[in-house]
Amino acid sequence: MLDRDKIQELLERVKNGATTVQDAMNALKMLPFEDLGFARTDNHRALRTGYPEVVYCTGKTVDQITAIVERLTAAHKTIIASRATDEVFEAVRKVNPGALYRKEARLIIIGEIPQPKTDDKVLVITAGTSDIPVAEEAAVTAEAMGNPVERLFDVGVAGIHRLFENASSLFSANVLIAVAGMDGALPSVIGGLVDKPVIAVPTSIGYGASFGGIGALLTMLNTCAPGVAVVNIDNGFGAGFIAGMINLIGT
Amino acid sequence: MLDRDKIQELLERVKNGATTVQDAMNALKMLPFEDLGFARTDNHRALRTGYPEVVYCTGKTVDQITAIVERLTAAHKTIIASRATDEVFEAVRKVNPGALYRKEARLIIIGEIPQPKTDDKVLVITAGTSDIPVAEEAAVTAEAMGNPVERLFDVGVAGIHRLFENASSLFSANVLIAVAGMDGALPSVIGGLVDKPVIAVPTSIGYGASFGGIGALLTMLNTCAPGVAVVNIDNGFGAGFIAGMINLIGT
Amino acid sequence: MLDRDKIQELLERVKNGATTVQDAMNALKMLPFEDLGFARTDNHRALRTGYPEVVYCTGKTVDQITAIVERLTAAHKTIIASRATDEVFEAVRKVNPGALYRKEARLIIIGEIPQPKTDDKVLVITAGTSDIPVAEEAAVTAEAMGNPVERLFDVGVAGIHRLFENASSLFSANVLIAVAGMDGALPSVIGGLVDKPVIAVPTSIGYGASFGGIGALLTMLNTCAPGVAVVNIDNGFGAGFIAGMINLIGT
Amino acid sequence: MLDRDKIQELLERVKNGATTVQDAMNALKMLPFEDLGFARTDNHRALRTGYPEVVYCTGKTVDQITAIVERLTAAHKTIIASRATDEVFEAVRKVNPGALYRKEARLIIIGEIPQPKTDDKVLVITAGTSDIPVAEEAAVTAEAMGNPVERLFDVGVAGIHRLFENASSLFSANVLIAVAGMDGALPSVIGGLVDKPVIAVPTSIGYGASFGGIGALLTMLNTCAPGVAVVNIDNGFGAGFIAGMINLIGT
Amino acid sequence: MLDRDKIQELLERVKNGATTVQDAMNALKMLPFEDLGFARTDNHRALRTGYPEVVYCTGKTVDQITAIVERLTAAHKTIIASRATDEVFEAVRKVNPGALYRKEARLIIIGEIPQPKTDDKVLVITAGTSDIPVAEEAAVTAEAMGNPVERLFDVGVAGIHRLFENASSLFSANVLIAVAGMDGALPSVIGGLVDKPVIAVPTSIGYGASFGGIGALLTMLNTCAPGVAVVNIDNGFGAGFIAGMINLIGT
Amino acid sequence: MLDRDKIQELLERVKNGATTVQDAMNALKMLPFEDLGFARTDNHRALRTGYPEVVYCTGKTVDQITAIVERLTAAHKTIIASRATDEVFEAVRKVNPGALYRKEARLIIIGEIPQPKTDDKVLVITAGTSDIPVAEEAAVTAEAMGNPVERLFDVGVAGIHRLFENASSLFSANVLIAVAGMDGALPSVIGGLVDKPVIAVPTSIGYGASFGGIGALLTMLNTCAPGVAVVNIDNGFGAGFIAGMINLIGT
Amino acid sequence: MLDRDKIQELLERVKNGATTVQDAMNALKMLPFEDLGFARTDNHRALRTGYPEVVYCTGKTVDQITAIVERLTAAHKTIIASRATDEVFEAVRKVNPGALYRKEARLIIIGEIPQPKTDDKVLVITAGTSDIPVAEEAAVTAEAMGNPVERLFDVGVAGIHRLFENASSLFSANVLIAVAGMDGALPSVIGGLVDKPVIAVPTSIGYGASFGGIGALLTMLNTCAPGVAVVNIDNGFGAGFIAGMINLIGT
Amino acid sequence: MLDRDKIQELLERVKNGATTVQDAMNALKMLPFEDLGFARTDNHRALRTGYPEVVYCTGKTVDQITAIVERLTAAHKTIIASRATDEVFEAVRKVNPGALYRKEARLIIIGEIPQPKTDDKVLVITAGTSDIPVAEEAAVTAEAMGNPVERLFDVGVAGIHRLFENASSLFSANVLIAVAGMDGALPSVIGGLVDKPVIAVPTSIGYGASFGGIGALLTMLNTCAPGVAVVNIDNGFGAGFIAGMINLIGT
Repeated sequence: MLDRDKIQELLERVKNGATTVQDAMNALKMLPFEDLGFARTDNHRALRTGYPEVVYCTGKTVDQITAIVERLTAAHKTIIASRATDEVFEAVRKVNPGALYRKEARLIIIGEIPQPKTDDKVLVITAGTSDIPVAEEAAVTAEAMGNPVERLFDVGVAGIHRLFENASSLFSANVLIAVAGMDGALPSVIGGLVDKPVIAVPTSIGYGASFGGIGALLTMLNTCAPGVAVVNIDNGFGAGFIAGMINLIGT
Repeated sequence: MLDRDKIQELLERVKNGATTVQDAMNALKMLPFEDLGFARTDNHRALRTGYPEVVYCTGKTVDQITAIVERLTAAHKTIIASRATDEVFEAVRKVNPGALYRKEARLIIIGEIPQPKTDDKVLVITAGTSDIPVAEEAAVTAEAMGNPVERLFDVGVAGIHRLFENASSLFSANVLIAVAGMDGALPSVIGGLVDKPVIAVPTSIGYGASFGGIGALLTMLNTCAPGVAVVNIDNGFGAGFIAGMINLIGT
Repeated sequence: MLDRDKIQELLERVKNGATTVQDAMNALKMLPFEDLGFARTDNHRALRTGYPEVVYCTGKTVDQITAIVERLTAAHKTIIASRATDEVFEAVRKVNPGALYRKEARLIIIGEIPQPKTDDKVLVITAGTSDIPVAEEAAVTAEAMGNPVERLFDVGVAGIHRLFENASSLFSANVLIAVAGMDGALPSVIGGLVDKPVIAVPTSIGYGASFGGIGALLTMLNTCAPGVAVVNIDNGFGAGFIAGMINLIGT
Repeated sequence: MLDRDKIQELLERVKNGATTVQDAMNALKMLPFEDLGFARTDNHRALRTGYPEVVYCTGKTVDQITAIVERLTAAHKTIIASRATDEVFEAVRKVNPGALYRKEARLIIIGEIPQPKTDDKVLVITAGTSDIPVAEEAAVTAEAMGNPVERLFDVGVAGIHRLFENASSLFSANVLIAVAGMDGALPSVIGGLVDKPVIAVPTSIGYGASFGGIGALLTMLNTCAPGVAVVNIDNGFGAGFIAGMINLIGT
Repeated sequence: MLDRDKIQELLERVKNGATTVQDAMNALKMLPFEDLGFARTDNHRALRTGYPEVVYCTGKTVDQITAIVERLTAAHKTIIASRATDEVFEAVRKVNPGALYRKEARLIIIGEIPQPKTDDKVLVITAGTSDIPVAEEAAVTAEAMGNPVERLFDVGVAGIHRLFENASSLFSANVLIAVAGMDGALPSVIGGLVDKPVIAVPTSIGYGASFGGIGALLTMLNTCAPGVAVVNIDNGFGAGFIAGMINLIGT
Repeated sequence: MLDRDKIQELLERVKNGATTVQDAMNALKMLPFEDLGFARTDNHRALRTGYPEVVYCTGKTVDQITAIVERLTAAHKTIIASRATDEVFEAVRKVNPGALYRKEARLIIIGEIPQPKTDDKVLVITAGTSDIPVAEEAAVTAEAMGNPVERLFDVGVAGIHRLFENASSLFSANVLIAVAGMDGALPSVIGGLVDKPVIAVPTSIGYGASFGGIGALLTMLNTCAPGVAVVNIDNGFGAGFIAGMINLIGT
Repeated sequence: MLDRDKIQELLERVKNGATTVQDAMNALKMLPFEDLGFARTDNHRALRTGYPEVVYCTGKTVDQITAIVERLTAAHKTIIASRATDEVFEAVRKVNPGALYRKEARLIIIGEIPQPKTDDKVLVITAGTSDIPVAEEAAVTAEAMGNPVERLFDVGVAGIHRLFENASSLFSANVLIAVAGMDGALPSVIGGLVDKPVIAVPTSIGYGASFGGIGALLTMLNTCAPGVAVVNIDNGFGAGFIAGMINLIGT
Repeated sequence: MLDRDKIQELLERVKNGATTVQDAMNALKMLPFEDLGFARTDNHRALRTGYPEVVYCTGKTVDQITAIVERLTAAHKTIIASRATDEVFEAVRKVNPGALYRKEARLIIIGEIPQPKTDDKVLVITAGTSDIPVAEEAAVTAEAMGNPVERLFDVGVAGIHRLFENASSLFSANVLIAVAGMDGALPSVIGGLVDKPVIAVPTSIGYGASFGGIGALLTMLNTCAPGVAVVNIDNGFGAGFIAGMINLIGT
């Protein structure tokens, strides 16, 4: 990457007359992509928003993960390692003794967990007990961004009274995350009840024609309820991140 | 098919000594599939149950349809021609002036429509307005079998209060048919509320990831609610038939 | 959930003049979903019908399963834990010593198994030997609801004489469950022979183009035989439940 | 639906001693779903938020559409008829002369279009020219909810400089809608640049392995960029609605 | 292509001493693919077996079809144009006045139809009336190869007695072609009854989960009956050709 | 099953006047499916043709397999257990000491292996080395039926000269089995060269877009070469059986 | 886009001391994406390589197409409008009278067609006659880039001698494009014969299990022949472009 | 294979008059596929180009692999064993002590690694860290053919500045390989920036709707960027081979 210093030097040389304007123009043109502080802007953005940076652990070696974490800690206040295992945590903890392991959510958090930046809350709802790990991944992610999070688990539509018994939670949330496998019908019902954005997360829970979550994914994409958008199957992190982002708009 | 008369004649010949028992045994063995009154049993069954016989019109020429109808009228009290068009009806009416055309249901009924055989009712529910043709196919089929049918249309889960406003219909039905396209979530909710069998019918209503009804089909197959079984996409006839059959058990 | 007591107290206060009618109206309006005995109704329904409640074990920890079972035993006479393993059974037996393990069906039954409530029987048929676990799941479920169940295994259509040799079983059943993997053709043949509802269960038995049961599922959804409805791949519990429900209509 | 008057009368009778508290309890229990002003709450919600109600026209007859529109106009300030045709507009205009037809967006708007409720803007971006109708559906929907909307069309990633030339639009938006067919790569790039929520809309534009939008849908679901959620293929309305909802949080 | 004459000339020159053996070797080596009478062998094969050559008409212009037919008539006794239309037939008849149009089978036959070369027969069976065009394509193809063909239509497994009534046809056939759409169960039943090879042809007849014939295709591939092989959806020609080939082995 | 003796007795009673013809008619009618020697016919067929009976081992317990084998040995000269494992063989050998284990083909053969019944040969060809187990399953099956079998392995189309070097094998075979994974192109090339029936077997060899054999399966179903039919993925047994059946026609 | 003039002015101001180096740094940093001549580079690239720019016509209105063409003609020597229709050509010709319409290829070429820049040729091969339009799209595209193109049509593997008869064409090509529908086996055979890169183009030609080209696509992706890469179904333009690009490397 | 000596002898006999020209013609005709030095040509080609021969290890036994390697070493200078394991390497090293194991690339190289034959380089780019094994397979393959290879890893489009920071690498490459899982958007962006051929490799990295690489595969096939062609999922070898082939054209 083009060093900021080089541009500064170039400008100095223009100022000093050591380089003509035309030559400076050409020098800049020769570097069409070697952008001016471009990547730095990216770091600025991370620092300003306080959004955590994520490392997706699956498919990476433990050595690769710890190396990436170390590189990121230089520029980010908070780093999330998702789909982490015990083995990964052991390795990360060696280089980041303060790292926190939220095992059910399969997340490791390195660095500072911010204080809640708002009183508005994100509500994470699951249809079943088996959907909880994905829901926790979403909830902990949103918390790591500085969001208050409420949890409401095991309230699927096949026993819809459980959902209605918690109407006050539903109606007081600012953003909702609905996590469901099998028929994936939960977000449709919730989206029809509330007037806040609902992020739907299909899970791979189920068997047979659930096809590892495709059934729930299609249900959610085809929802008749307005105000629902969908993330990838089992993508708790993604749901927590966008829900947290929405909840922090304007803060 | 082996004529009953031939068997009778054979038995007469055994009785008369014109044929030995051994020869009669052999004659019977030679006809392993030319069953004794087998097909007749089939007709008997039709006459006894009063279930209508169905002709699926798609992919058949008008001439084929009228020929099949004529053949069936000899042995069945009621015949249903499904997926019928105006053109088919015109042709059928020429040979069966009493044929009745239920256009919205795309059904032609030839022959007698039986009086209700029970007070128990089949309830046909749709999620949306666009699902009505499939629902009507189901309702008219069940009626043609002698079932009282109640209709409850446009009560999808995205506005679930409409469903609950009709709770008395839900709880008083003996068998329910839930027709839904798009997210197909309706049967899950209904199956969680009632303790009667629910026949779920996915429709091809929707676009994009509804994939011509696959989305709704998968939702219904993956339902968490017990007491739900599914028929083919848009198969109103099949749903009406099995629901009608269930409702008439014991009558 | 809004306690019944709270409503009673509210009504008492109306009666006593401690609350005006208008205030009581508002109080009720404020709780649009905190329904009056709504969930209790649900429990009433369970007690009245005697239908068992089910816990689907896959994806739940042993601790979660035993906790759910304990919570359910308070309100249900019979509980079924489906897709159970030896490990689950060991844990459940500790808290419910009377729990019964039907290993082949992968079902644990906790609580009372009701006496048959009818003489009408559910007939469970399999195409092959490998389909038996799913069939047993269906059979035991229906039995746990109080249904007489007959089994007829390994009578697939590739050797159709085996099916015909058991014609008397076929024709005397009130509801039929047809379990088949591979080509899944069994329900079509059965549906063409009997005039009773047939619940078709595709199994994941097969290889190659059976695609884990999709082949059989599609066959069954596309059946030309009226009177057939389908449940999810390997969903023995679902088939047993709806068949049992149908068989008990009117009892 | 249970009339509010009936509940009021019941309470009056409790007050007057004409009904015992116990009888009133029972009367309320008998109506587990006949909720108290439940649907009314729903209307209240619509009126309070000012969110438009939508009628999806595909699969409905013109008569059905005009009837639904008339019914909704009683309770909603703004109604959107989506996937409308010239024929539908002609019919709607007869009963609602002030109806507005946004042909490119295939939307009819009946009733009041609210003034912008915020200065924050929704940015609608398309990858190609052919994606514009879907993008317009999203943009007009958000506008009909009271959102300022900016459009940025034909800036797909295969010529990524066009996207970068509009960096100021990207960075000043509060919520972004990224509409793309074919490879569907646009939301990934945008999601990596901005720190605001991105609603991704796959379109059915493409051929061959685009499979009517499945290719773009999968790309978007699999995005590595956090902060992206997806709606159904070609679902401009859904994207516009949730984006508009997010943009109005806190207003 | 290397002309036979060229090789002959080369050999003559070797014989005459005009070319050395080494030079002839090199000349031959230079033409690794310009095979010696290779294509001619192909023609010889066609002439010897009398198998017809086929032109698949879909996607070709009428001019292309007539040009191909003219080229083929030079080397083949019989040519089949499959998936032909009235328009194609009109054009072909102009250049081949003796061309025969089997409209139901969508086949045009140009040239000689051979006398039956055997007494063994091919039996073509369909499940439904709508499958007849594909079955006729198969039957006429086999006839055009010199096979006696028997037809048995509309004997699907949902009314299996119709199949059994024709047991003598089933058991006397040498090769069987089973044509079925929807559930595609027919070949499984037939394959379980006979001990002769069965060629299964899925058709695109059906709707919903038949997915244009995929349902029937999977059923047939997954058949439990040994002795069944499958051709492409609606591929009557392919089934007729291989069945005819099998029936003529040894003739 | 109705015992032959019962029918004989019935006929005797008719003969003796102990039963009237009418009563005998009724008795026969009561047994519409309890066919006369029907299943026996099936056994006769097995004995006459000498075709082996197959037991598919996957999904069956060792006890089930040995029990089935024992039952079958009563009526069949040769039994094949397919997809057998070492464990299965150990168990089978205990009850059938003469059982033969063809490990590479994953087949156990119990009973007599017939002498070749013809000089015509079945040629089994594979595209790659990894396809050999499936090919051996086909080859051994055909041999167990009394067919001479020739093997030609690892001659895929990506090195097509290897195929052409074995032209004499290709042209002298009576029936051909072409086994291929990955692109599955082998049967197309073979089908274009020979004038004998080709049974194509897709294998699950490959990765990525081979989708466990779907890629090869589709290639084979879409072949342009006439004279090719397809069996299920990895179905060596099915290919060997139908090829063996074809090769023995007329013997 | 940031005008070059603005940067020049900024540099002038630095030179003149009207702006400090620090302020200039900040000004540049504020424009992280407003790149310096970035898009201009893009145009330079187009002019230098002479590669044509493409307009994909499907889904665009005629007005949109002509507008895009006009805009592009300012910066590109050659423009290709792909998937063009007669109507599009009429409109384009009005504004570009010299536009050339290659109807079979569905391409319009606007601007200069370059002289061949090399003697190396691109060989375009089709399996069948119906694949020719896609092949022509590829061929004309490569020609419009300045490549010599040879065509070899209708040489599919089911009659593989036709391919071998043209061995000299195969072996003298520098890059090959293999176009095939149905079984898509052609590129595998070609890739095994030549030692030059082969671009494979699946076409949507076929029926049934060809699934609109998926069958051929999978075959090509799964090819065992090294040296083969694949483009989208029916994407003649893409194949011609990359093949042309490869052929011009080093020119 | 027909020995060259046999043809020579035949020609000698023609020369000597021991065989007539006609008999020689016939002898040649009898061997339509026993081609003259055909396979030898193939070996010549391998030796001339120096392209390595590949052995795909998956699905082969260690014994099969070492046997194949030994056979190939006779005719090829370089052999690559792909998808190799430690166990395979141990076995290969015993018979080829000089064999080199590139573990990350899962490749064993036997024989000579050629010196770079050109200064033009192949650039291998990955979107993520997890894509590196596939990328290394590509890189090492190209190197084994004599190509200079540059690597640029972890520059996915969700952080697109990383890609732009390496613009000089992008623009100086002769051929590019873009390796990406998940959304697979990398090749679209690269293809829009460079004017050189891009070989896209989807990887199976991802979860949920990535479907083992299908998501990335479809993205790449649907790319809007010209100059991109695709190989199978995870097919690093194939990408490296064709890219290497392209890079060596003209050398």
